[in-house]
Amino acid sequence: MLLYYLEMIGTAVFAATGVLAVKRQGLDVIGGLILGVVAALGGGTVRDMAIDAPVFWIRDFNYVWVAVVAALVAFFFKRPSLRHRPLLYLDAWGAALFAVVATDKVLALQLGAPVAVTMGVLTGIGGGLLRDILAGRPTLLMSREIYATPILLGCVLLVLLRHATPGLAYSGLAALAFIGGLRSCALYWSLQMPAWLTSREDAPRDAAE
Amino acid sequence: MLLYYLEMIGTAVFAATGVLAVKRQGLDVIGGLILGVVAALGGGTVRDMAIDAPVFWIRDFNYVWVAVVAALVAFFFKRPSLRHRPLLYLDAWGAALFAVVATDKVLALQLGAPVAVTMGVLTGIGGGLLRDILAGRPTLLMSREIYATPILLGCVLLVLLRHATPGLAYSGLAALAFIGGLRSCALYWSLQMPAWLTSREDAPRDAAE
Amino acid sequence: MLLYYLEMIGTAVFAATGVLAVKRQGLDVIGGLILGVVAALGGGTVRDMAIDAPVFWIRDFNYVWVAVVAALVAFFFKRPSLRHRPLLYLDAWGAALFAVVATDKVLALQLGAPVAVTMGVLTGIGGGLLRDILAGRPTLLMSREIYATPILLGCVLLVLLRHATPGLAYSGLAALAFIGGLRSCALYWSLQMPAWLTSREDAPRDAAE
Repeated sequence: MLLYYLEMIGTAVFAATGVLAVKRQGLDVIGGLILGVVAALGGGTVRDMAIDAPVFWIRDFNYVWVAVVAALVAFFFKRPSLRHRPLLYLDAWGAALFAVVATDKVLALQLGAPVAVTMGVLTGIGGGLLRDILAGRPTLLMSREIYATPILLGCVLLVLLRHATPGLAYSGLAALAFIGGLRSCALYWSLQMPAWLTSREDAPRDAAE
Repeated sequence: MLLYYLEMIGTAVFAATGVLAVKRQGLDVIGGLILGVVAALGGGTVRDMAIDAPVFWIRDFNYVWVAVVAALVAFFFKRPSLRHRPLLYLDAWGAALFAVVATDKVLALQLGAPVAVTMGVLTGIGGGLLRDILAGRPTLLMSREIYATPILLGCVLLVLLRHATPGLAYSGLAALAFIGGLRSCALYWSLQMPAWLTSREDAPRDAAE
Repeated sequence: MLLYYLEMIGTAVFAATGVLAVKRQGLDVIGGLILGVVAALGGGTVRDMAIDAPVFWIRDFNYVWVAVVAALVAFFFKRPSLRHRPLLYLDAWGAALFAVVATDKVLALQLGAPVAVTMGVLTGIGGGLLRDILAGRPTLLMSREIYATPILLGCVLLVLLRHATPGLAYSGLAALAFIGGLRSCALYWSLQMPAWLTSREDAPRDAAE
């Protein structure tokens, strides 16, 4: 099934970007391995525990194997020049895929559209948050980068499309394209949230530095 | 039902104080929104996952709506002078309410008084801990402020009262007044834990600065 | 039952080392108490929530009592000279015990050997990770110390032994000795991961300092 392979690709991308993001801080292979796996599977794990569903990687350990391999490859990958840029775009589409799949998964459980959106966002950003917390880095919530916003808007768009046209198969693709595209644009043009949507910084941004 | 509305007020207060606590660090509206919602609902979420109960805001999403609105209001609220003091008192009573309600909820599940106290404390401080972790701030556990202590003592008081006088309806109010009152006094007089209850600081308090 | 008492000893050791590790940062007794209990019970709690088993200390609160007493003793223990070295060896054997017991527990649930290894590692290091996160300290994942590696290898060894000789009672002891022994050697000779298993530090190790 196509979706399954796409999920595996998303898992590998998250594990790789997770390792590359912390690699410069100088850690050993086991630490990098754990952080990469957490980045790839953490969001979905918290989601499944919250909705009291069986944790997805316990039922199908292939998710973990893919994350492990990708994390190890990224750890021993020696080209710092390639560290971020290209993978960040892949990461954007991986997050989009995870968020869309999670939103549909929760919608199918009849838990309601708002819960589905919440879980979609949690799945899209949860892994990265856990990775940053374990690595002692400021989380993306404290940065001005546009990361969570497209995911939130895209999950809202998806539930609206599902509600408006239940049968439409392309709703997921539309939300996927919206999230991945918006995030890609933010990356390409280094967009930041406008000032009026950002709190004054009348204090040193200790947590964000 | 009165208790329900009180819980909603407590949720709103936690979300607002959660946002105001991190606002100075300069973050965008989505980050503030997520941190406020986590501060308001995080403790109860972990509690429900630990006792394997359905997560409360999944069954009744109004908790999330209230937290979202309160977080947004607090984020765009422009009077820094009003930032902390008054809301800290409200926060104290919100934490007291959450702890008391959680303790009674777990007592009703027949999980035992010690578990009830543990979950009461977890619910009272969990949201704030998660918010500080996500915001990269030192958690209240590392500060000398008297915050967790009244909650712990109040939850113990509540289970003792429930055990001594099962029928008494005022036990909850007594514990509520004890926690909120003690915390308010600590705030008003800027009380700190006595030295003999505090570990020597023979090393820079890196984590607490 | 011997195993039960060993688990209690491991719990006490984890709570004590958890408190001693953060004591220098200067915190009050309640903060130390909570951090010690989290260090002792956090890993197993996350494990039980992930495999959807009843949280072990909710069913048997003695684990918490032991952790509370050990944390308080460690907090008021006044000999800084004795702070770390000896307890670190006990800590190594406590982690080994927790990991082995958790691996066998998950194997018994028929969740598969890879899940068992994952949960064994999670149980062995989870409490320490949560403690460091709550205390605002860099987690062991960002240090060069050899801590998670013996646990991971020992859990793999255990599932291999269980698979090869299902009836053999000594498999657990072998894995226990492997993990505790390897970690003890790493402590005694201050071993670090070899450079080729460690990522370059071409940037200040902010998170790890």
